[in-house]
Amino acid sequence: MRPSGRELSEMRAVSIETGFTKHAEGSALIKMGDTHVLCTATIEERVPPFIKGSGLGWVTAEYGMLPRATNTRMRREAASGKQGGRTVEIQRLIGRALRAGVDRVALGERQITIDCDVLQADGGTRCASITGGWVALRLAVDKLIKAGDIISNPLISPVAAVSCGIYAGQPVLDLDYPEDSEAGVDGNFIMTADGQLIEIQMSAEGSTFSRDQMNSLMELAEKGVGELAELQLAACA
Amino acid sequence: MRPSGRELSEMRAVSIETGFTKHAEGSALIKMGDTHVLCTATIEERVPPFIKGSGLGWVTAEYGMLPRATNTRMRREAASGKQGGRTVEIQRLIGRALRAGVDRVALGERQITIDCDVLQADGGTRCASITGGWVALRLAVDKLIKAGDIISNPLISPVAAVSCGIYAGQPVLDLDYPEDSEAGVDGNFIMTADGQLIEIQMSAEGSTFSRDQMNSLMELAEKGVGELAELQLAACA
Amino acid sequence: MRPSGRELSEMRAVSIETGFTKHAEGSALIKMGDTHVLCTATIEERVPPFIKGSGLGWVTAEYGMLPRATNTRMRREAASGKQGGRTVEIQRLIGRALRAGVDRVALGERQITIDCDVLQADGGTRCASITGGWVALRLAVDKLIKAGDIISNPLISPVAAVSCGIYAGQPVLDLDYPEDSEAGVDGNFIMTADGQLIEIQMSAEGSTFSRDQMNSLMELAEKGVGELAELQLAACA
Amino acid sequence: MRPSGRELSEMRAVSIETGFTKHAEGSALIKMGDTHVLCTATIEERVPPFIKGSGLGWVTAEYGMLPRATNTRMRREAASGKQGGRTVEIQRLIGRALRAGVDRVALGERQITIDCDVLQADGGTRCASITGGWVALRLAVDKLIKAGDIISNPLISPVAAVSCGIYAGQPVLDLDYPEDSEAGVDGNFIMTADGQLIEIQMSAEGSTFSRDQMNSLMELAEKGVGELAELQLAACA
Amino acid sequence: MRPSGRELSEMRAVSIETGFTKHAEGSALIKMGDTHVLCTATIEERVPPFIKGSGLGWVTAEYGMLPRATNTRMRREAASGKQGGRTVEIQRLIGRALRAGVDRVALGERQITIDCDVLQADGGTRCASITGGWVALRLAVDKLIKAGDIISNPLISPVAAVSCGIYAGQPVLDLDYPEDSEAGVDGNFIMTADGQLIEIQMSAEGSTFSRDQMNSLMELAEKGVGELAELQLAACA
Amino acid sequence: MRPSGRELSEMRAVSIETGFTKHAEGSALIKMGDTHVLCTATIEERVPPFIKGSGLGWVTAEYGMLPRATNTRMRREAASGKQGGRTVEIQRLIGRALRAGVDRVALGERQITIDCDVLQADGGTRCASITGGWVALRLAVDKLIKAGDIISNPLISPVAAVSCGIYAGQPVLDLDYPEDSEAGVDGNFIMTADGQLIEIQMSAEGSTFSRDQMNSLMELAEKGVGELAELQLAACA
Repeated sequence: MRPSGRELSEMRAVSIETGFTKHAEGSALIKMGDTHVLCTATIEERVPPFIKGSGLGWVTAEYGMLPRATNTRMRREAASGKQGGRTVEIQRLIGRALRAGVDRVALGERQITIDCDVLQADGGTRCASITGGWVALRLAVDKLIKAGDIISNPLISPVAAVSCGIYAGQPVLDLDYPEDSEAGVDGNFIMTADGQLIEIQMSAEGSTFSRDQMNSLMELAEKGVGELAELQLAACA
Repeated sequence: MRPSGRELSEMRAVSIETGFTKHAEGSALIKMGDTHVLCTATIEERVPPFIKGSGLGWVTAEYGMLPRATNTRMRREAASGKQGGRTVEIQRLIGRALRAGVDRVALGERQITIDCDVLQADGGTRCASITGGWVALRLAVDKLIKAGDIISNPLISPVAAVSCGIYAGQPVLDLDYPEDSEAGVDGNFIMTADGQLIEIQMSAEGSTFSRDQMNSLMELAEKGVGELAELQLAACA
Repeated sequence: MRPSGRELSEMRAVSIETGFTKHAEGSALIKMGDTHVLCTATIEERVPPFIKGSGLGWVTAEYGMLPRATNTRMRREAASGKQGGRTVEIQRLIGRALRAGVDRVALGERQITIDCDVLQADGGTRCASITGGWVALRLAVDKLIKAGDIISNPLISPVAAVSCGIYAGQPVLDLDYPEDSEAGVDGNFIMTADGQLIEIQMSAEGSTFSRDQMNSLMELAEKGVGELAELQLAACA
Repeated sequence: MRPSGRELSEMRAVSIETGFTKHAEGSALIKMGDTHVLCTATIEERVPPFIKGSGLGWVTAEYGMLPRATNTRMRREAASGKQGGRTVEIQRLIGRALRAGVDRVALGERQITIDCDVLQADGGTRCASITGGWVALRLAVDKLIKAGDIISNPLISPVAAVSCGIYAGQPVLDLDYPEDSEAGVDGNFIMTADGQLIEIQMSAEGSTFSRDQMNSLMELAEKGVGELAELQLAACA
Repeated sequence: MRPSGRELSEMRAVSIETGFTKHAEGSALIKMGDTHVLCTATIEERVPPFIKGSGLGWVTAEYGMLPRATNTRMRREAASGKQGGRTVEIQRLIGRALRAGVDRVALGERQITIDCDVLQADGGTRCASITGGWVALRLAVDKLIKAGDIISNPLISPVAAVSCGIYAGQPVLDLDYPEDSEAGVDGNFIMTADGQLIEIQMSAEGSTFSRDQMNSLMELAEKGVGELAELQLAACA
Repeated sequence: MRPSGRELSEMRAVSIETGFTKHAEGSALIKMGDTHVLCTATIEERVPPFIKGSGLGWVTAEYGMLPRATNTRMRREAASGKQGGRTVEIQRLIGRALRAGVDRVALGERQITIDCDVLQADGGTRCASITGGWVALRLAVDKLIKAGDIISNPLISPVAAVSCGIYAGQPVLDLDYPEDSEAGVDGNFIMTADGQLIEIQMSAEGSTFSRDQMNSLMELAEKGVGELAELQLAACA
């Protein structure tokens, strides 16, 4: 029934390649099917003005898409002179999600910026960014620990994200682009490896959904995040 | 326990004054406690390029805050040269929410823009905008029906929104600013009057939440939206 | 002869409601007929760089119009990415006008920002902004005096503004929008309650005017400002 | 008493050199003392959208200042990414002033753009721009008449501008920069050669002025504009 | 003598992987040592306004760098709201270079956009972009030919680019970042496979160079471009 | 053969008028035929952040063109909200070129900004800017030396620039606009008075060139720069 032939609760093939670039303190190329996102982590010994002197650390994120990551070329945001509303929304989401899994006292007064750049898109880029971004974050934190710059691990639990939606009347896990563009209801679930919720964004375009459907989607999300968390930990090992 | 002395499931006093401005095709000043939002509806006999010639209508929204709607003055977005990420996110949300309650075929190929301008803020401005915005939209649609420009009512059901969150360990309904700034978990539920879900945005900042908590919040939201829908219909009568 | 049936030297009904918003140090909703402007005053204990350390205070203003304050919706300036030329001109005028009535030594090294936001427009928004803005300024200054932050009153005299023009060949006072859009000659007179001039802006579009006509307009302006000054003082009492 | 040693009603030496650049349809380098402005006129066979098809012509203006036209270098507006408020105000003024002296029916549906670029500034650049701009406009119109593109002369009368102000308690004509920066009251008078008024902009910064003073300034302005109009006509001859 | 231990006339290891992304009409990941650039070609059946209707085709390029492609993170250009001067210069250069090798009549009235995005930088990104960009262009053109959309091959000869400079007093080929940041003189040579020159950009920062040195650099460039052209053709085979 | 009737190796008439504006520390109006550029030098006792505290000076440049410097009016860059790619390229080139001729230790920790504003354009504006800019720079440096602010002359040798190209199959010196717009190959040579090279920018649009042609152009450039250097020194004497 799904265009890809997958089961309703079957994720796409996922791979995470660490060390994809040499300059960043942490980097990971995550592939969720044909969605490929390069995530890098940059450590800076400074924090935004609003927490200066607080002793707390900060994790933030930026998101971008190469112009031809999509089927038809999109205008380069740098050329149009601003980040679009969708970009701003996504990068704020990534930052919030990753911060939820960080003990900011343990991190200490420094900032880690996660850059998520989509090299190829086929649906679910924000979920891939969060999942791959956590790996880059973890690698950067490992470097800090190894160097003795921080003592206790500020990463509480892996944070991963997966999309779910109602496609052709059925709840499905991990929508690819053909599904995403048809689904009347879809959203993203961001969770920790131990099943706690961090963020839910469910949205219906030209449609509505019931609490029962919401519960089915939540079940799928728990399954998906569990699988992703294992891959994240394996990639960092 | 709540700073305002309200019960956990008690909303703030809500009033909706229609006809607040004379030029708009529909207008409503909604007050949810000390949060006051002026919502206006503008009808235009044109649609965005991507649906031109489709016969479908469009509903969109823009959101703004007067610089001193808040406790400390915020920089005017027109002066800083762009709408901030928060503004962009909110106005996209309002637009999506209102569109979900519209039969775009029945609306016909025209656009209705809902402007939501916060005159005074005390938490929950996006929920007030959606709830008041629907009233302005309904008044504009009534005008179109009365003029014979559209035949069948494109508004399927009232759309209202309410915030819920975990405050001091307890699930509470309709957070005001003092609660909002302390809550580790909070979000917005957008629903139709008959209890169908349109959008859920739950988010934890520096914290997580369980499925049980999520269910409690959903209960509160259903109660709140039910109350708001009655006020919406009364205001339009 | 006037579309509104007013006498040549008759102003529209004017009302000034103070305390319209709760956060600002001073606020006033001024209505000059169907022109409604919300004016708020914000006190900040800092001044612009060019007078830092001088001991002098500063009063500045910003102006905005809600998109549907007018008969047809105007594009939101925050969305178009800059304040238009008209906006910039008006807010500079408001700031200059209000500063002319302030003893900046007595004010002390602090800044008061007057935000003037037009909720509904029907001609004469800049005059309403100055007149209402002075009330907001006065209320903020009263708060400073009451708190003992300043000793001698820095407000020399009420500052008010009124428009005059040649409509259908006749000098008229306080043009509303239908008159304003037809008048070949019109302008604004900003004066103190005791009849001293602060600023005159007379302008002819596709026409010219004589010194005699200029004198007639000046007479009307003196009458109008006198009436406004009484209302300002009453509102602050 | 004046820093320059001039009489109260004495203008600076004024010269107007036409044909300063070869590409423009009209050009004039005007020197009012040490204020030097290059004015060019560009004819285009198109008009702004809002008068398309009306048969009416349009005259508009743009204003700029070279970064080192002033005593200390100002940031280049093209580099800062926008025209400042002062620039916008001035170019709107120049456009309005010149349009007031044009019969837009006789001009026909075409646009003339007057660019006024200050090569060296010493006070009064907007007056010099209007006065020199009219000469460039006239030369361009002459070209249109000579080519048979327009039949009746659309230029009704020369338009010239001069500044006046209260300096050291005395009304003075044509303020230079040292006077301008000290004057509590100053402004610009734009008039036709036959003494009709087009625009008055009088402004007091930290001060006020009386109707008697206003009358004295008006006298000076009439004298100044009369002298300028003669120079304009001589330059075009 | 070179930090990398290379001979003076030895290039870094170069590899070109085609088909790196699935959406683009042509794509190549070029690696010149640690400089990795992803080049994609997008075909559009439209041309810029200035050649509309001419029957001629157009080739243009855009360039970007991921924020952490470099040793320290650079601000994302989309976030700062404009492309920097360096970016603009480089993308104009790439476009000019590739156009020089295209028969625009044979291409027909369509546009091919080459996006060059630097995933990792270690000197010479503009040369890698041109060299890899030509491969992406060639693959896109091959697709057009195969589809019968164009008849005669518009690509005259491979276009490749290499940097040369004076490092530690010696002329060297293909500078990496450590050399580039030390070299007083360096530049880029863009040539066709048969040794014709397309563009030379030699520049001395805080230094000068002689005609003899220029000749030595030209020799190196010819050698380098020859090697690159072979790799380009092999990659496209 | 050349449209102007000049010999292949003949430059246009060149004049350099110093002291054209009174405020700048150095100024020169250079005319290369009908290309007229006003160059001013501004001394500031501060340097960009990246060399603060280094003891080194900085020379930078900005470039602009009056809207009607060209045959058809170009949009004012300040109005379009950014400097175009061509402008950015040119001003970076001018800055680099002038810095190459400066001993930055001898200059001391201060910045000199060269503004080059084209009053009238007829090809070769960047070369005129560099050549005239050096004169303005030299005059400013002379002022510093005279005032005892610097001891040893930081200007090593005059820096001048000239364009060369292949026009109608022949190498020509100092292209004017009619030649420039037809030439398939052209570029700029920036050199010191003693024949050392600073920058070469040769570029073919839709064409290529050989090493032999490159050598002929170099010969012409040496001749041209020699003549310009003499004029520069004469102007400063």
